[in-house]
Amino acid sequence: MIHPQLATMLAFIVTDAQLEAAALSTLLREGVGSTFHRITIDGDTSTNDMVLLMANGEASRRALHPNDKGFLPFKEALFRIMDHLARAIVRDGEGRTKVVEICVRGSKNTREAERLAFRIAHSPLVKTAFFGQDPNWGRIMAAMGAAGVAFDPQKVSIFFDDVMVVENGMAASGADEGKQRKVLKQEEFTVTVDLHAGSAQTSVLTTDLSADYVKINASYRT
Amino acid sequence: MIHPQLATMLAFIVTDAQLEAAALSTLLREGVGSTFHRITIDGDTSTNDMVLLMANGEASRRALHPNDKGFLPFKEALFRIMDHLARAIVRDGEGRTKVVEICVRGSKNTREAERLAFRIAHSPLVKTAFFGQDPNWGRIMAAMGAAGVAFDPQKVSIFFDDVMVVENGMAASGADEGKQRKVLKQEEFTVTVDLHAGSAQTSVLTTDLSADYVKINASYRT
Repeated sequence: MIHPQLATMLAFIVTDAQLEAAALSTLLREGVGSTFHRITIDGDTSTNDMVLLMANGEASRRALHPNDKGFLPFKEALFRIMDHLARAIVRDGEGRTKVVEICVRGSKNTREAERLAFRIAHSPLVKTAFFGQDPNWGRIMAAMGAAGVAFDPQKVSIFFDDVMVVENGMAASGADEGKQRKVLKQEEFTVTVDLHAGSAQTSVLTTDLSADYVKINASYRT
Repeated sequence: MIHPQLATMLAFIVTDAQLEAAALSTLLREGVGSTFHRITIDGDTSTNDMVLLMANGEASRRALHPNDKGFLPFKEALFRIMDHLARAIVRDGEGRTKVVEICVRGSKNTREAERLAFRIAHSPLVKTAFFGQDPNWGRIMAAMGAAGVAFDPQKVSIFFDDVMVVENGMAASGADEGKQRKVLKQEEFTVTVDLHAGSAQTSVLTTDLSADYVKINASYRT
């Protein structure tokens, strides 16, 4: 029941750095955009979520400005924490046996990359194939085809971690299904789709869809 | 793996009536719009589907025109057949134990009614609640809230068959969960959502999401 915009989730991040409210707000929005808003369990949402970032300023007497030398390390540390928390949510997904990063690159723009990544991440057929550890790239291509995004299927490459599975829209030459299965047997892996149509990219973190997911959600009331 | 636009499905409808190609084409599009395009198993699609309507004209020497007396009965019979075939596809859904009609009425326009109906029909949380025979109307409201359609939750009513479950966005006064469960224990039932915001409506036929759905799709390659 976790998906961008709304989810049953309360996150509190505190720091003793001193920053102005506007700078904190900008950092929070940017960080949420690439972490909490890039996770999904089943596409379902609920009615309360919140990420709070609070700074009490105890560490210094003057506010850290975006031009200061210390600003970038602070930003990096903050984003690392947000990424860590977002991943922890996915790892807690109901009945999940896998954590899968869906990376779409070579897209004309970020919006289309997002649509494709979320369509793949939400596809029950893709997710059950992850659960079955089946390197079924046809289901990934089919999910992409239904995303409402124009792309040339004959230019698509797909990788499981660094193993090429699809090349120019077809099974990669010399594709070794044993190697592909080995990637999918891991608890965490990445599926990378390259559209070869531009330079935009995004990635989304999701889970498989297991029989336990169904049992959990059929037998208790959320 | 069945959802409007594309599905692994080939339907052939033949008649000995005589109709012009343009009239047949119009009837087919209209009929598909309210039948084959109103079913969904899991929102996933595949790469081949087809509904063919063929008339050999053996029954009469002149073509049946839309103004003819016999046209309406022909149209009704044709739509009945299309509805029958579309329902049969849903009944064949992988691992399904329920066939559920999601009816959204009182909408400002048909497009918004469709978005809401499909969002409810695709929600894994709603579908697992159907599998668990749990009258969990909160999941239905949550799915509606994530559909990207503006509506007033305080005006919403929800019925399971003719049993009122939600009234003005809250549990209906005198709601009897026993009666609600009795509806959900049936193999086929209807969930009706009334937005009280207009006169447009639509309905979508779907299934529950069962543990068997996961087992079937995790263990064989489509």
